[in-house]
Amino acid sequence: MKHLLSINDLSKAESIAILDTAQELARVSDGPMKKLPTLRGRTIVNLFAEDSTRTRISFEAAAKRLSADVINFSAKGSSISKGESLKDTAQTLQAMGADAVIIRHGASGAAQRLADSKWMSGAVINAGDGTHEHPSQALLDAYTLRKHLMHGAQNLKGIHVAIVGDILHSRVARSNVLLLSKLGAEVSVVAPPTLLPPSLEGWPVKVSTDIDAVLPTVDVCYMLRMQRERMTEALIPTIREYSSGYGLNERRAELLPDHALIMHPGPMNRGVEIDAAVADLPNTVIVDQVRNGVAVRMAVLFLLLGSGTTWGGEADV
Amino acid sequence: MKHLLSINDLSKAESIAILDTAQELARVSDGPMKKLPTLRGRTIVNLFAEDSTRTRISFEAAAKRLSADVINFSAKGSSISKGESLKDTAQTLQAMGADAVIIRHGASGAAQRLADSKWMSGAVINAGDGTHEHPSQALLDAYTLRKHLMHGAQNLKGIHVAIVGDILHSRVARSNVLLLSKLGAEVSVVAPPTLLPPSLEGWPVKVSTDIDAVLPTVDVCYMLRMQRERMTEALIPTIREYSSGYGLNERRAELLPDHALIMHPGPMNRGVEIDAAVADLPNTVIVDQVRNGVAVRMAVLFLLLGSGTTWGGEADV
Amino acid sequence: MKHLLSINDLSKAESIAILDTAQELARVSDGPMKKLPTLRGRTIVNLFAEDSTRTRISFEAAAKRLSADVINFSAKGSSISKGESLKDTAQTLQAMGADAVIIRHGASGAAQRLADSKWMSGAVINAGDGTHEHPSQALLDAYTLRKHLMHGAQNLKGIHVAIVGDILHSRVARSNVLLLSKLGAEVSVVAPPTLLPPSLEGWPVKVSTDIDAVLPTVDVCYMLRMQRERMTEALIPTIREYSSGYGLNERRAELLPDHALIMHPGPMNRGVEIDAAVADLPNTVIVDQVRNGVAVRMAVLFLLLGSGTTWGGEADV
Repeated sequence: MKHLLSINDLSKAESIAILDTAQELARVSDGPMKKLPTLRGRTIVNLFAEDSTRTRISFEAAAKRLSADVINFSAKGSSISKGESLKDTAQTLQAMGADAVIIRHGASGAAQRLADSKWMSGAVINAGDGTHEHPSQALLDAYTLRKHLMHGAQNLKGIHVAIVGDILHSRVARSNVLLLSKLGAEVSVVAPPTLLPPSLEGWPVKVSTDIDAVLPTVDVCYMLRMQRERMTEALIPTIREYSSGYGLNERRAELLPDHALIMHPGPMNRGVEIDAAVADLPNTVIVDQVRNGVAVRMAVLFLLLGSGTTWGGEADV
Repeated sequence: MKHLLSINDLSKAESIAILDTAQELARVSDGPMKKLPTLRGRTIVNLFAEDSTRTRISFEAAAKRLSADVINFSAKGSSISKGESLKDTAQTLQAMGADAVIIRHGASGAAQRLADSKWMSGAVINAGDGTHEHPSQALLDAYTLRKHLMHGAQNLKGIHVAIVGDILHSRVARSNVLLLSKLGAEVSVVAPPTLLPPSLEGWPVKVSTDIDAVLPTVDVCYMLRMQRERMTEALIPTIREYSSGYGLNERRAELLPDHALIMHPGPMNRGVEIDAAVADLPNTVIVDQVRNGVAVRMAVLFLLLGSGTTWGGEADV
Repeated sequence: MKHLLSINDLSKAESIAILDTAQELARVSDGPMKKLPTLRGRTIVNLFAEDSTRTRISFEAAAKRLSADVINFSAKGSSISKGESLKDTAQTLQAMGADAVIIRHGASGAAQRLADSKWMSGAVINAGDGTHEHPSQALLDAYTLRKHLMHGAQNLKGIHVAIVGDILHSRVARSNVLLLSKLGAEVSVVAPPTLLPPSLEGWPVKVSTDIDAVLPTVDVCYMLRMQRERMTEALIPTIREYSSGYGLNERRAELLPDHALIMHPGPMNRGVEIDAAVADLPNTVIVDQVRNGVAVRMAVLFLLLGSGTTWGGEADV
């Protein structure tokens, strides 16, 4: 295992190994010396062809805490925008000594293509590719859920997670469905019919268009970010109407069981998919997701690049 | 004291403590080993919602000389531009482990709001907020003035500083008026009536619209950058007319006492508020202001983040 | 010797010293510890007024492997774009403690002007100025050529290099012609008449407009990137026609002697100046050029900034 491209590629044991390692690393980071020497002398490239300051910074902070050198490569004005093929970019970064490339790209499968390019011997980490996957997001979400609901237990059996919003376009939803079900949780997707994939065959999920009916049954309510483009694409009538039909407002938050968590991948559209007041409720763990993101990404880098360690060997499941 | 938001928040003793610390750090930086290990393992985020390469680089250089890790977060394409609230940004950066956030923002009070956000436990440093304040600029200016005119003495009593230009919109003017008068200097502001605040009540300054009358009486002539927007806003008739009425040309520079310093926050519009030849005179200390900026910002970071040191405790006044 | 501004400034001995040093450093980089402590505490500024992610990253990787701190200063929204003169920028960077400035600029001679500015005591490295020079590119090309064809020998006597494409506008062509002939190689430039300089007097090159006639005689075929702008400028009829007249397609690649190398400064326009299949041939060393770029740039930084070492002293020729 040398890349992190999609949740599909991870076995259950490997997924759990990442979460366990993140837990160890979070413990170290909370101590007096935040920085570990593990990746000293290693070069990690952030190749971001789409804007995502949040994810880029999270990976950058994770890499620096492991003492790696980080080079940021944003797409604007880059050779990619000059028409260079992704393969040539891969070869270039490899030749410059990149030990890992963290790639965010608008095209589904971009990370996979980068990894398949025969000249790239470094690790490739998918930080979001089109509408396909965003595996590190799903891992940090699972970590958060495990920490708050399971007291660190490895199995999510018996947990019911509802993912609400633009399921059709969301790589976050996709990666979460795959990981959560792999870890034993039950997943429901909730959306207006226009924002559901035409076929959900093979997806291990229940489907609903009625958020109010689902909320009382969940342990986690995971709200997706609504993109304003969906309105111009006529997939939703108006933002206001979407919000009133599927947004998590105070009334709906009261339908949730007391122990249920509210999650969101960020950045939030307060007042659209989630009300400002709901975002600040005590069982909202959105800020903790961000915190856990650094630990989980440290774990991914540690396991992919750390000296001589293989993922399989780490897991003891 | 855990933030640097405005000069107003600083006591005289604290201001002097920063300048004294900067003096110490400048001495170290001039030695063979430019880098101190003080902030190793600390993460400092440059959150720049307005362009300001110069200030950003100055803080970045200061942080790196103290061995901190620096993460640059420019507003373009960031979650801020996607409509995320400043509070969510604060929580995000905090969760990612930012020990300090250096913020540049177009809205007056943005740094204050970031600091007030209850989730942000790290230090907030105001690197310029709207037309409000730019405290580190005033501190480096006071440092420069003290070094050149006072042989390092702490008190600026007896010094007369004229600040010339767009007083109305200038956060640099505002922070300088507050700091210089706090340190005992006398301050005059000089500008056409349209570029003076409607009321100067409570400001410890003398006001003049006649630069030629003021220049012979000053120890420091501090020229502000003229923004071309002021012309389209009809606050000045033309750049040329402003320049002839308030620019520091060679004739005017000769009105200054021999010992008087010429200062400017940069970047200069040579030929607008200051003539090219004047910018290169021996008593022009503009480049030295830049140099001192790194030392002063090191001092700010050192005092806010350095282990267990409090500002009050440093000052011995 | 304190800057790297143009190949013209380098003696043959100095050029060879850089290549020899790069060879040493490449050996170290291939070892277990990629990072050398040589430039710890030094600050290197990447001042890029033109986009060039590839060159910027190559210098950044080189500087970080020598443990320097790197500050990126892109022109967009910088004081340069606000109308600050290059001299003021130089003084500013110098005052902030830049030990070296790596400059990429659209104006020919920008690096020279930066170096001449009397306030800049740090080293200036030209990373491409207008249509003038790109010396580190020529150095890495010579390194690549020497490695593949000469078994590391210092002299390129007897080697014939054809540079094909937009000779008129190419700083890569210019620097390569100068360096390769300095090192003893024979150089031909091959282009349509509209893309040749009006006069080639004084250039130590042969000129041809017939690529098919030249290819069988060369040891190296160096393809230049074709800019699409040349079409709108009416210097070439269409990209397709240029490609059919001067592109390196499979038929033409077969005209090359078996031992001949195919080179390109990158990023390639696959299908324009070089066919996709040709770019992947075994004697194509484009990726190795990128790899060598890091070693050569490490050598340049090492020799310019490394403690107490002078370039002349390194060379033993």
